Amino acid sequence: MDTSLDSPSATRGWPPPRWSRRSGWARNQPISQLMAQALQYPELISLAAGFVDNETLPVEKTRQALAELMDDPRLARAALQYGSTAGNPELRDRLRARLAHMDQKPELEQAIELDQVIVTAGSNQLLHLVAEALFDPGDVCLCAAPSYFVFLGTLANLGVHSVPVETDQDGLVPEALEHQLAHFQRSGQLERVKAVYLVSYFDNPAGITLPLKRREQVLEILRRWNRHQRIYLIEDGAYRLLRYYGEDVPSLRSLDESGQLVVWTDTFSKCFSPGVRVGWGVLPPELAQVVLDLKGNVDFGSPHFAQCVINQVLARGLLEPHVEVLRRAYRTKLEAMLQALEEHLGPLPGCRWIRPQGGLYVWLTLPPEVDTRPEGPLFHAAVERGVLYVPGHYCYPTHGGPVPHNTIRLSFGVQPPERIAQGVRLLAEAITEVL
Amino acid sequence: MDTSLDSPSATRGWPPPRWSRRSGWARNQPISQLMAQALQYPELISLAAGFVDNETLPVEKTRQALAELMDDPRLARAALQYGSTAGNPELRDRLRARLAHMDQKPELEQAIELDQVIVTAGSNQLLHLVAEALFDPGDVCLCAAPSYFVFLGTLANLGVHSVPVETDQDGLVPEALEHQLAHFQRSGQLERVKAVYLVSYFDNPAGITLPLKRREQVLEILRRWNRHQRIYLIEDGAYRLLRYYGEDVPSLRSLDESGQLVVWTDTFSKCFSPGVRVGWGVLPPELAQVVLDLKGNVDFGSPHFAQCVINQVLARGLLEPHVEVLRRAYRTKLEAMLQALEEHLGPLPGCRWIRPQGGLYVWLTLPPEVDTRPEGPLFHAAVERGVLYVPGHYCYPTHGGPVPHNTIRLSFGVQPPERIAQGVRLLAEAITEVL
Repeated sequence: MDTSLDSPSATRGWPPPRWSRRSGWARNQPISQLMAQALQYPELISLAAGFVDNETLPVEKTRQALAELMDDPRLARAALQYGSTAGNPELRDRLRARLAHMDQKPELEQAIELDQVIVTAGSNQLLHLVAEALFDPGDVCLCAAPSYFVFLGTLANLGVHSVPVETDQDGLVPEALEHQLAHFQRSGQLERVKAVYLVSYFDNPAGITLPLKRREQVLEILRRWNRHQRIYLIEDGAYRLLRYYGEDVPSLRSLDESGQLVVWTDTFSKCFSPGVRVGWGVLPPELAQVVLDLKGNVDFGSPHFAQCVINQVLARGLLEPHVEVLRRAYRTKLEAMLQALEEHLGPLPGCRWIRPQGGLYVWLTLPPEVDTRPEGPLFHAAVERGVLYVPGHYCYPTHGGPVPHNTIRLSFGVQPPERIAQGVRLLAEAITEVL
Repeated sequence: MDTSLDSPSATRGWPPPRWSRRSGWARNQPISQLMAQALQYPELISLAAGFVDNETLPVEKTRQALAELMDDPRLARAALQYGSTAGNPELRDRLRARLAHMDQKPELEQAIELDQVIVTAGSNQLLHLVAEALFDPGDVCLCAAPSYFVFLGTLANLGVHSVPVETDQDGLVPEALEHQLAHFQRSGQLERVKAVYLVSYFDNPAGITLPLKRREQVLEILRRWNRHQRIYLIEDGAYRLLRYYGEDVPSLRSLDESGQLVVWTDTFSKCFSPGVRVGWGVLPPELAQVVLDLKGNVDFGSPHFAQCVINQVLARGLLEPHVEVLRRAYRTKLEAMLQALEEHLGPLPGCRWIRPQGGLYVWLTLPPEVDTRPEGPLFHAAVERGVLYVPGHYCYPTHGGPVPHNTIRLSFGVQPPERIAQGVRLLAEAITEVL
């Protein structure tokens, strides 16, 4: 009653609110718009969202982990209580061992101090904290072009300039990195460059794993430039376990003998459950301290219950068998997507795509005259036919070109194989229409 | 091997890292130091930490909620999948109804749009996002003095000036708020003031609930000043349910007929479980959109599993009986603390404290010559005897004085009654020694 009567007059004549500069930087980022689009047409076959497969979510394994946790009153109480800023120490100890194990480098476990391991609410929180620790507005993060667009959004939030480094079919081109650094040096702007960002396994969006030789080249370049000033390499390993073909490659972190150069970030969102949402990382010691100072002022610890669930998952050996389940399921989906692309896009002139060995994405390049952006004709034609994709230009760093407008990120994570095939067929029809 | 050999030489001559300005603002905040102190002497009776009582953590109720969730494959899968940026819609609907119910104002449920309800990883995340939406470095947040020191740290992280508003035994003094606003206007700096922050129930640290009359006065003042420029009231309701005596008071949010003025923030950390860590808020519509833009770029949704657990807790009516358990347990602890204070500090000249009707804290003022800071003699004497407290000066806004050095925040949440009594006795001994 009072609301309806008083509301209009109470605020009449109030000036509009004034937001922070950061709010301005945050506006109109792609992910919200795409999600809104997906929600608006729920019947769409979404090959856009980076969600994981719903059918393989680890219901039984989570039940087991929860039972182990909740049946022990001491463990249960600890899980329901606050944790600490850096995260559960037992879990952090396991994660340190885990990285050493993944990299088949046992000495890494000794070399990494527990204080360097930080657990967060998803790796996005860690990426955000690292960015807050390093960047002032106007600073530069060199990013593989294309790159994970949520991290580009995180950088935009902070007023950071994401500047592209060229990639080819093997990922980031080391010479292009050297070139960009030299460019900033020549223009007297090198001190703005604080980090290089890279998804090092089955990257989002292009599905590429940086080969060993390039990893070594990238590290060699950065070691050299770090003599001038500190430039960190942020290595995003979110998809590492989702390998369906071929052999694992050592992480850049494990190749960084100094331990001072690479920030390793990882997550259980893709390989276990995004809803539980536990991310983690191994940071150079000095950076870890700065990140903990920032984190301690804001949340003094990410949700502890979720950390304890993941700790049980690891302690009971529940992760590896689950990853095997995921590999089988996603390989089938990837094959369905590649086969459908071959069948429906193969005959179309100028369409090509990268065949990934893992991850959740296939990166598609169309003839240069096809504009894949939401305001272009293809996006509309695709949605009309019932299929949604991520326009590739969203995945390009914001400061420095060129940004191609003829690329697409397709995700095969969510849809079952037959819907993937159907979605690709509909997309091919839409492309044919606009060609 | 490689690590030990290469590490020193590899980084020899590297310059030190350069951090962001925010990193500088974040350094040396009190909470980390206190936590470190507590960890260093685990045998201490900590009357410092704001942790909740371990014995009453809702193990059985969480098991029930988890069983409901995990026994339904559809619900279980949804909980393990990503959620949305604003949070689980079913939970947000319940939370909106919850606020209307708490305030005995059914029409509030209709007046609040679902888009105004945001779920976060603890209310600290929401407070942080609101601060990011509003403040640029150098902007001003008027804060009750004393105030919740983690939020003061959040403001410091962002380079925001926290400026004190005087309080008395009834909390924030409306005339002092008016006075501060007029002061900023006179000095031509009013536009720096973006918000007022207030813990409106059993506040952290002083345990005071702002009386209804003052709530109305504060709103009247802010309504008037909002004609000049928008100044939000951030109402932190974290302790509202922890009432052991007396009657509830309407929230400032419910008294804000415009719905445009008050930001309501709340959490299940104190009234259910800090480990599950679900916070929530009801924001004015425009501010909600800005916060969602920021959040969408960073985490596109707080941990969904925890939200689904809390949703089950509410759906199954598990919260209210748990709050009753908490009220009984904490009332006993509060009485133990007040009785011990009476017994051991009552006889000492110039010691006084506020008797709260709820919450987790008792605010103590010592004779002016007693310095309670960590570098003063009392802190050392107390730790030597085996008791830890929060020096009260940490709870004062950073920009503008005076900051008294003779106050203490005591928490009765964690320790059992006999340890509370013992802790207060040890503290009295320490005070006697330094007097």
